[in-house]
Amino acid sequence: MTLEAPVARTDPAAQGGQFGDRLARAHAGLQGNGAGALLIGIGADLRYLTGYAAHPLERLTMLVLPVSGSASLVAPHLEAMAAAGSPAGAAGLVEVVAWDETDDPHALVAELLAKAAIDQGAYLLVDPGLWAMHVLALQRALPGRDFGLATEVTRELRMVKSADEVERLRRAAHAADRVVTQIAAGRLVGRTESDVSREVRERLIAEGHAAAPFAIVASGPNSASPHHDAGERTIQSGDPIVLDIGGILDGYGSDTTRTLWVTGGDAGHAPSPEFLAVFDLVRRAHADATAAVRPGIACGELDGIARSVIADGGYGEAFIHRLGHGIGLEGHEEPYLVAGNDEPLRAGFAFSIEPGIYLAGRFGVRIEDIVVCTDTGPDVLNETPRHLLVVNG
Amino acid sequence: MTLEAPVARTDPAAQGGQFGDRLARAHAGLQGNGAGALLIGIGADLRYLTGYAAHPLERLTMLVLPVSGSASLVAPHLEAMAAAGSPAGAAGLVEVVAWDETDDPHALVAELLAKAAIDQGAYLLVDPGLWAMHVLALQRALPGRDFGLATEVTRELRMVKSADEVERLRRAAHAADRVVTQIAAGRLVGRTESDVSREVRERLIAEGHAAAPFAIVASGPNSASPHHDAGERTIQSGDPIVLDIGGILDGYGSDTTRTLWVTGGDAGHAPSPEFLAVFDLVRRAHADATAAVRPGIACGELDGIARSVIADGGYGEAFIHRLGHGIGLEGHEEPYLVAGNDEPLRAGFAFSIEPGIYLAGRFGVRIEDIVVCTDTGPDVLNETPRHLLVVNG
Repeated sequence: MTLEAPVARTDPAAQGGQFGDRLARAHAGLQGNGAGALLIGIGADLRYLTGYAAHPLERLTMLVLPVSGSASLVAPHLEAMAAAGSPAGAAGLVEVVAWDETDDPHALVAELLAKAAIDQGAYLLVDPGLWAMHVLALQRALPGRDFGLATEVTRELRMVKSADEVERLRRAAHAADRVVTQIAAGRLVGRTESDVSREVRERLIAEGHAAAPFAIVASGPNSASPHHDAGERTIQSGDPIVLDIGGILDGYGSDTTRTLWVTGGDAGHAPSPEFLAVFDLVRRAHADATAAVRPGIACGELDGIARSVIADGGYGEAFIHRLGHGIGLEGHEEPYLVAGNDEPLRAGFAFSIEPGIYLAGRFGVRIEDIVVCTDTGPDVLNETPRHLLVVNG
Repeated sequence: MTLEAPVARTDPAAQGGQFGDRLARAHAGLQGNGAGALLIGIGADLRYLTGYAAHPLERLTMLVLPVSGSASLVAPHLEAMAAAGSPAGAAGLVEVVAWDETDDPHALVAELLAKAAIDQGAYLLVDPGLWAMHVLALQRALPGRDFGLATEVTRELRMVKSADEVERLRRAAHAADRVVTQIAAGRLVGRTESDVSREVRERLIAEGHAAAPFAIVASGPNSASPHHDAGERTIQSGDPIVLDIGGILDGYGSDTTRTLWVTGGDAGHAPSPEFLAVFDLVRRAHADATAAVRPGIACGELDGIARSVIADGGYGEAFIHRLGHGIGLEGHEEPYLVAGNDEPLRAGFAFSIEPGIYLAGRFGVRIEDIVVCTDTGPDVLNETPRHLLVVNG
């Protein structure tokens, strides 16, 4: 059923065009790909294609975009009004099909595909983030169909950011930058990591983030764990701190890392020569990879540039993760800057550059900016200083 | 490889016992079920079984618990230290197996299963929240295997909350209650829903929540959309507001709804007789369902009790969602209080009771508490008044 739209979150007239264009491009991608339909659940692909930011809960919400026939947005009855009020719903680009609590939503998707009469042999492309409970139920409801990932179609659309998307990423980056500056200027010594992490999350939200899912505050030896979960360790004078923070602002991700050193105001707690040398290596790897950003260079090649700087300095084994990840509607998305990824950069690609060195039991260093590839080189969105932030704490 | 543990977030010695017990019960469940292995990704099942709260990102993290052989925790290299420092990792209950950025983690899972020599015909139970990208890759890496959902084993473990879990839910509920009280006491008229929603999320975090993923502020006619996304509508005198808020505190969920009426201090903007009658119906449905909570009553029966009150009042068609959902490590989990669910309540089940009436284009009402079933009846965790909160706003 098509439901009456409530007061819409955004002006559908202004948004319909953008989402209409994206849906048309997804449809063209499907045709080029030979697949039968896109089945997109709750998440970034749905937001990208329809503007609908459904709550990530267990009930099935699904954009069904068949290669033949029209697009439907399957939604639980209690969210049908919200779905109909979404930009694509309000603009009539998708028909909202509601299911009640005791209905079988996967059978409903199968019915919609049957109605669209897609080719019997065509495979179906599911949202890469769709929950297994839905994947297995769709496989049961659609026996004999092969399944692939919607990424085959959506990555091409989402990797190249529009000017508007870049500005949203920039605003998110600047908001995270302000939080880095605030934290670096505040008290740190004597507080637990988790207390500082809570302050980071509060400040990210106060600076406009809708969600602040991560705030890595890794102090002392914990800084050697790249994704350390802020814990009960108390920050001490003479600690390094890897501060890796971000979230979602106006739909787009922020993600930045700075490494601090807290002296507690005591010159005896200054960083060691080895720490300074490691920091300098990471700084150079970061700068060299950033300077190399231009259309045509492969993602894996950028990773290699940073990795050689660190390997030449003798710490190759300690750079234990890829150079970076794409960012947009998701905090991590295509393209990934990882060895072996031959994807050439294009203007509009947005990604993190975040080399690091991690010495287990001792310390770690990481520096991370969000960078957009432009025709003339890198557009670095983060603006806080990249040198070692030596603070009293 | 097994990695050295960093400073652990919780005392592993104290936690090992709890997680050892849970892993043993999951293993017994597997044996009883006839399945070959549990494959648990990032999320609530992993937190329940190992205490490991990995960041919900795209790299594969997976507890591989075969029916024969020992348990492994597959983790990306950069998170291996965090995995090894988790309660189950630090207590030696699982062996951390790290993969590097260019390795194939799904092939690694298949190797671990081959090493465990599980029966060729045994099916595999995957985390219900595992992303499709991992589900399809595991299906490719394990051709010929049937897949089911880990819920078959984990729901039995997780539905019955321990006394400690109930106390965590209570603390989370009380924190959300304080935010409801603060918001009801503050200014509302003239502010946008999204501004109030931002304040709710800030306050939830200030009250101790680690994450505040939702804060429904549905005003005026938007209150008729149960999962309305707070938008740019400005709250006016004479508006109802459905305030449905919650998040995760100390690992456990909070979730409470109160319906407010804002007068703006003007007696001319008092609620209409019809609104008051609808509110009263929801209040009685809520009270009757809550009073009926006891071991043995079926989940669907509780839904029916609330539904009859509302249907008898003439608004049956307007109660467009189930009565409630379980809550624990996840905001929504088993058991679901929905028509047709014959699962009998047991002492320790924790769930929401949240009847509502929604009149499209006009208004909506919902009241929600978290309730724990005890041997002697309901233990209602939320403590704010359940009557209509008429405020100046």
